Amino acid sequence: MDLKNKIKVVENFPKEGISFKDITTLIGDGEALKFTIDTIVEYLRDKKIDLIVGPEARGFIFGVPVAYALGIGFVPIRKKGKLPREIVGVEYGLEYGTDTLEIHKDAIKKGQRVAVVDDLLATGGTINAVAQLIESVGGEVASMDFVIELTGLNGRENLERFDVLSLVKYEF
Amino acid sequence: MDLKNKIKVVENFPKEGISFKDITTLIGDGEALKFTIDTIVEYLRDKKIDLIVGPEARGFIFGVPVAYALGIGFVPIRKKGKLPREIVGVEYGLEYGTDTLEIHKDAIKKGQRVAVVDDLLATGGTINAVAQLIESVGGEVASMDFVIELTGLNGRENLERFDVLSLVKYEF
Repeated sequence: MDLKNKIKVVENFPKEGISFKDITTLIGDGEALKFTIDTIVEYLRDKKIDLIVGPEARGFIFGVPVAYALGIGFVPIRKKGKLPREIVGVEYGLEYGTDTLEIHKDAIKKGQRVAVVDDLLATGGTINAVAQLIESVGGEVASMDFVIELTGLNGRENLERFDVLSLVKYEF
Repeated sequence: MDLKNKIKVVENFPKEGISFKDITTLIGDGEALKFTIDTIVEYLRDKKIDLIVGPEARGFIFGVPVAYALGIGFVPIRKKGKLPREIVGVEYGLEYGTDTLEIHKDAIKKGQRVAVVDDLLATGGTINAVAQLIESVGGEVASMDFVIELTGLNGRENLERFDVLSLVKYEF
């Protein structure tokens, strides 16, 4: 299936100069959603993954059905103040200022093999923060799986030590 | 499976007096996640549902795997400013002030039968706003399916005209 066909590119959103990849058209199509999830699931099936981790909010969209199909659990990474129990947090740089991501301290057991699932790999900044959180609570990042990769932003170079999958590539 | 056992109740979060139902322990358990999704899927299987709709962010967690398992599409309802194309919005009341939810105008075709999936039914305020959005773009709300229902807040009375399922009940 040509997944690129199912994604709508919206120019100048959320601001001038950004070419936004709208995945709502992909997930709104039952066959395209199923194909996307099944492709990630087949890629992960023999990698002995214990848990899927996904960052808020689009990481939930793709990560939870992958976990469901593999019969394993899903661990959410959320913005500051959303998780109710003891957390570990990491601050990471954005274009302007910083943001904080949090994970429950007891969400991953020491040595568990984790696959990170998210919609988009851009510079890799967010996903490196996610990997840092997973490792800080004892998990091992066994794979990073994205629906879309923006190859012109060199995110893969920032994720050199990881196993990286992406299904659809754009330059920017 | 006793799903209530898989949910952690955290007192006084996010503020004094609130008894927060933490579903991260449920979804972190592969068997409990699978049981939860499969129970909603079996309930919906013969209802001729065309699309699943879920509000940001916890509606994504349960709604997308339900859509995946049924082989149908998922339509996200998001907070203001997140959806890139033409939207319909609704403002609804919170305890203090108001919030806005948005849906893509072309996400649902006229007459399509929609099931709303979310984590929690409390007063029904948010979910009534969600139903309003679905109907305003031409959809028919055929079912509303929640993992948790807080029966003491009478949400069901505010949803009288809908078919409502909940898997786990607490008074507050």
